[in-house]
Amino acid sequence: MALPLSRRALCRLKNGFRGLGTEAQQGVKDAAPRVFSGIQPTGIPHLGNYLGALQTWVQLQDTFSSILYSIVDLHSITVPQDPAVLRHSMLDMTACLLACGIDPEKSCIFQQSQVPEHTELGWILSCLTSMSRLKQLPQWKMKSQQNEGSVGLFTYPVLQAADILLYRSTHVPVGDDQVQHLELTQDTARKFNKRYGDFFPVPVALMGTSKKIRSLRDPSSKMSKSDPQTLATIRLTDTPEEIVTKIRKAVTDFTSEVTYDPESRPGVSNLISIHSAMTELGVEDIVRQSQGLETAQYKLLVADAVVEKLRPIREEIQRLQGDPDFLKKVLDSGAQTARQLASPVYDAVCKMVGFR
Amino acid sequence: MALPLSRRALCRLKNGFRGLGTEAQQGVKDAAPRVFSGIQPTGIPHLGNYLGALQTWVQLQDTFSSILYSIVDLHSITVPQDPAVLRHSMLDMTACLLACGIDPEKSCIFQQSQVPEHTELGWILSCLTSMSRLKQLPQWKMKSQQNEGSVGLFTYPVLQAADILLYRSTHVPVGDDQVQHLELTQDTARKFNKRYGDFFPVPVALMGTSKKIRSLRDPSSKMSKSDPQTLATIRLTDTPEEIVTKIRKAVTDFTSEVTYDPESRPGVSNLISIHSAMTELGVEDIVRQSQGLETAQYKLLVADAVVEKLRPIREEIQRLQGDPDFLKKVLDSGAQTARQLASPVYDAVCKMVGFR
Repeated sequence: MALPLSRRALCRLKNGFRGLGTEAQQGVKDAAPRVFSGIQPTGIPHLGNYLGALQTWVQLQDTFSSILYSIVDLHSITVPQDPAVLRHSMLDMTACLLACGIDPEKSCIFQQSQVPEHTELGWILSCLTSMSRLKQLPQWKMKSQQNEGSVGLFTYPVLQAADILLYRSTHVPVGDDQVQHLELTQDTARKFNKRYGDFFPVPVALMGTSKKIRSLRDPSSKMSKSDPQTLATIRLTDTPEEIVTKIRKAVTDFTSEVTYDPESRPGVSNLISIHSAMTELGVEDIVRQSQGLETAQYKLLVADAVVEKLRPIREEIQRLQGDPDFLKKVLDSGAQTARQLASPVYDAVCKMVGFR
Repeated sequence: MALPLSRRALCRLKNGFRGLGTEAQQGVKDAAPRVFSGIQPTGIPHLGNYLGALQTWVQLQDTFSSILYSIVDLHSITVPQDPAVLRHSMLDMTACLLACGIDPEKSCIFQQSQVPEHTELGWILSCLTSMSRLKQLPQWKMKSQQNEGSVGLFTYPVLQAADILLYRSTHVPVGDDQVQHLELTQDTARKFNKRYGDFFPVPVALMGTSKKIRSLRDPSSKMSKSDPQTLATIRLTDTPEEIVTKIRKAVTDFTSEVTYDPESRPGVSNLISIHSAMTELGVEDIVRQSQGLETAQYKLLVADAVVEKLRPIREEIQRLQGDPDFLKKVLDSGAQTARQLASPVYDAVCKMVGFR
């Protein structure tokens, strides 16, 4: 169901999609390989987003010839948003994606709400999805406990299914927490195909292999955009000074040695994971090279690595933020491409359903 | 909250919308009067639909200068539909509406799925609607007991709210069973206005005054499109012979007198209601004129009245069904008008929400 996205897998993908024998072609024999993924516009991406998703997005550009990355503003309003902040975040997120290496010549970057077919297909799919199937999803159970959920917060996995299927996508890079949502998409594709005839490829998950990056203030939880503790999260736009401060103040433990043991020493192990991801050194090499260093000294090494890795990205984000016209052009052109791809698919769906 | 749509009310409406002092203008002082209503495409309308809704729709044309009547195919798929039947039903329903007296010069008749903004606004409104609010609606409680409901069957009242608000409608003719859905629309309009600023008029209900028409086979339930007993329902396309048979076989009771007593004699009272609606005679006049008649004889009188009233409608439906190009033209032109009205409203909504 889900493919681990190792270098080897990427290499195999590069050597030919058909060789994979995935489910993606199930039902629809001639489905062309196509990647779809989405990111919420609000909040500057942090190190966890970068290593968990964005780096993979960049890598996929060398493997797939058709890729769509959507900035999913429709999903962002499942919780209240300040309209002015939301409006501004579209350009910021576009700048971040480009600065990380998403190339608009290779990938279609677009604003979800600019393509009406997302909600149109979402409606049709919602009529194929049973209430009980949707209630099973753990994210809803979790989120609806925190506050009185909106209908949109409940049904957004159906809109996600539409996001993916609208482009007859075959591959979807996802994080662990989205696997069950992709399974809903797969079920929905099968259900549509069964009722109306083979049409949607059943998309497969591309799972990232990079280690989870954890909060710098509480290594028991993931690094998160919405963490209220500003010191917990390193954002791609943080200055070198901010990065150094955050890593120096990162919660570790009372042992000053540098050892990798995520279970009993989650704090320092998280720093080693970050260090490894920044430098492409293996965890064992890092531990060996850091023998004799105290944690406080080691933190400076890690901070240095993060500062150096993020410097060009931060500078590029700033440069791009100074050129909103260019960012708008990228989004306009992306929306045009996405609409061109979506329109014939939705038209075919309408004919199958009986609307046309 | 709801206006009874008596002749007097219609007359007052005719003499000026502002004189009504309705809630419709609450929040949005310059809202132009506009009527919106919808009808499902599938199934030929029956006598109950005609007397309960369509006659009112026709009357409203003399009162309101802006009217939209949508054939709501998106709503029809909340339960499974045969695509071929659904496709064909669009033209049939258009023929029925025109034959009943809906004038495309006065009313915009259009296919809901031709206007993408319905589902787009629907999504935004779903993010403003709480799950608990939606679960309260009695229709969901009832329908979800009958079978495992789809997500669409649960959320369709939100799409209804979008249908209405998308045109900043001020008046909505509704049946008794839709009053609570219109209340959801009103709540949603207020909620949007509170969060994003005054924009949507809070639409008021126009309640039909005509008596409920009941099943000819079981006068304890409403006449219904989905009744499996073909003798229970008189369709607008029924032949004179079919009408006579159905009314002759209508369930009454063992008293052969013609008296009006809906509680203890629902069968014969239903026939009197039908008779009254067909002839515009009062119930008392009918009872007086029918003194001395046995029920079986009276049934023939009623059948005659129905045949005469429906004859021109049936003939016009047949004529129009023979001219699908004309019907398509009506729908195309309606969709164009609806899109022209919807587009600036949805654009303004997007700006308020922060999508643009």
